[in-house]
Amino acid sequence: MSYFRSNIESMTGYVPGEQPQAEKFIKLNTNENPYRCSPKVLAAIGQAVQAGLQRYPDPSASAFRTAAGDLLGVDPDWLLCGNGSDDILTIVTRTFVNAGDHVRFANPSYVLYRTLAQIQGGECHVVNYQDDWSLGEEFTKSCDRLRIAYLANPNSPSGTTLAPDTVAQIADALPCPLLVDEAYADFAETDCVELVARNEKILVARTLSKSYALAGLRFGFVIAQPQVISQLAKVKDSYNCDALSIAGATAAICDQVWLGQTRDAILTTRARLSAELRALGFECVDSQANFIWCRHPQNESEQLYQWLKTEGVLVRYMNFAGWGDGLRISVGTDEQIDALLALLKRAL
Amino acid sequence: MSYFRSNIESMTGYVPGEQPQAEKFIKLNTNENPYRCSPKVLAAIGQAVQAGLQRYPDPSASAFRTAAGDLLGVDPDWLLCGNGSDDILTIVTRTFVNAGDHVRFANPSYVLYRTLAQIQGGECHVVNYQDDWSLGEEFTKSCDRLRIAYLANPNSPSGTTLAPDTVAQIADALPCPLLVDEAYADFAETDCVELVARNEKILVARTLSKSYALAGLRFGFVIAQPQVISQLAKVKDSYNCDALSIAGATAAICDQVWLGQTRDAILTTRARLSAELRALGFECVDSQANFIWCRHPQNESEQLYQWLKTEGVLVRYMNFAGWGDGLRISVGTDEQIDALLALLKRAL
Repeated sequence: MSYFRSNIESMTGYVPGEQPQAEKFIKLNTNENPYRCSPKVLAAIGQAVQAGLQRYPDPSASAFRTAAGDLLGVDPDWLLCGNGSDDILTIVTRTFVNAGDHVRFANPSYVLYRTLAQIQGGECHVVNYQDDWSLGEEFTKSCDRLRIAYLANPNSPSGTTLAPDTVAQIADALPCPLLVDEAYADFAETDCVELVARNEKILVARTLSKSYALAGLRFGFVIAQPQVISQLAKVKDSYNCDALSIAGATAAICDQVWLGQTRDAILTTRARLSAELRALGFECVDSQANFIWCRHPQNESEQLYQWLKTEGVLVRYMNFAGWGDGLRISVGTDEQIDALLALLKRAL
Repeated sequence: MSYFRSNIESMTGYVPGEQPQAEKFIKLNTNENPYRCSPKVLAAIGQAVQAGLQRYPDPSASAFRTAAGDLLGVDPDWLLCGNGSDDILTIVTRTFVNAGDHVRFANPSYVLYRTLAQIQGGECHVVNYQDDWSLGEEFTKSCDRLRIAYLANPNSPSGTTLAPDTVAQIADALPCPLLVDEAYADFAETDCVELVARNEKILVARTLSKSYALAGLRFGFVIAQPQVISQLAKVKDSYNCDALSIAGATAAICDQVWLGQTRDAILTTRARLSAELRALGFECVDSQANFIWCRHPQNESEQLYQWLKTEGVLVRYMNFAGWGDGLRISVGTDEQIDALLALLKRAL
């Protein structure tokens, strides 16, 4: 058949991290939370199941927006919910980018930004991070056809974070809106939610996949000024969030005690993992996320990844064209990290 | 802000049927199934919840595709799953339609087709149904920029169905792919799944929202030849179906006994509703779906809708520009239909 859009036919498509459905792996490759979600989430889902599934869900996920708005200090009409933050990124791209328009993002960063631009028929401006993981002036350079810039903050795979003041300056200097992708912000010292009220060109995306241990539920949201939200709302599918995810996500965001405890556990393990990797000779970037980006000067990253996989531990090998490669290791439980470290000691 | 795409800014956005979150209404307005889903669905969701939600779901929903493929007589690689069939319609539109391209659909039909074209920046060819609810030659007329035709079959709001042979002829005559939207096919006497193997330009979309009573879960799928599926797969979000919906949908499609019993109950009530509406003087179209499209010669449809709403019964008032209006009444339980009919007897 030759009816496909040429940009779709010529692209390769996003390849997500391996998701083996068997249980045999210690899975440290897609930044999932190693802990189970709050029991209150399970209870809320159980209640929603009992209420029945024959009715359509609330198209605007009002219960979640009210609860999250309370937590973040914004009115509910500053929030739009999505089927994971990938859905949010898709909606934002479709709202701003025509075919032939340009989008900008940093490298190395979340590979999906390129895919979203390709699907939309957009052109990519890829700006390499500097050696200290800051972004130079190229990231804010003016361009007539630039329609959106994506900034993962904390960034993946580096785990580094730009300070809110820096992000505010970037947004002011950019000739287009800035989507700050805060998928990992709950693990960081700072976030950019407060900037949204100061600049309508700033949109902040969040997900419950990582910090709330709900990757399987698919729930994310974006914070933006209401006149922006109302345009995004036209692009989203009416019923993009299902009844169970709305119930579960609302319970999750209301259980900040669980979040605090889980975050503390992960940050403690992250510090230990980082120290032990360095003791083994790895070069590690200081991380503000739930993973660590590292390379070993004497060992090929891809070989280490392959060997760890044969030994039952999945980490993420990433190779960024024109930039280099490395391993991104998710912060698991202490037992999982012990198993990883024991293997690495054998390998090195 | 003036950064939005002009087609987004100028459109009004799709308005779904009213979804009051309070329980006070007898809800016959969005073609939900009045019965609760199979208990096996609830059990499967419960099991998936117990397994934990911290992991990403299977990006390709293999368990569902295997089960549905068995049922429909196609290999799993002929199926792609979506977050409701609206997600499927979105994916299909984004795979085939560039800005400025044309899409074709019948009128009156599912209003979302227009919205999907608008978001994509496409132009709409709207072809009115003929008086007998068939489609004339205008629907297959050649056009250089035509990229997709949507055909709801059974159609909403009419509930009418074109025979598979007719659909096959339409697909052969069209200069573009044909998306047969079979959201209501489980209530009809025929369907078009077998046509997919005969013509790669035919795609058949299904949803579990209506016949399987799972509107709250969001699960749909499309049947197409593998070389078509592989292009659609590039456009879908990686994790567009969550772990609970995959588990629930798989259990649903495996419980054909439940489906048969529920369908029988709905078809019996549909026949009675149709007969009683006619006895009250309504003009009803013979329906092969789980709703009935009707008008009363002496009463304004909009006023009837409003009055029924004040009395606690929600039906769907629909007004199609240049065509006319009417009421679309979902087939509820016998008790719900008795309540509706009692009200109508008072009103007329």
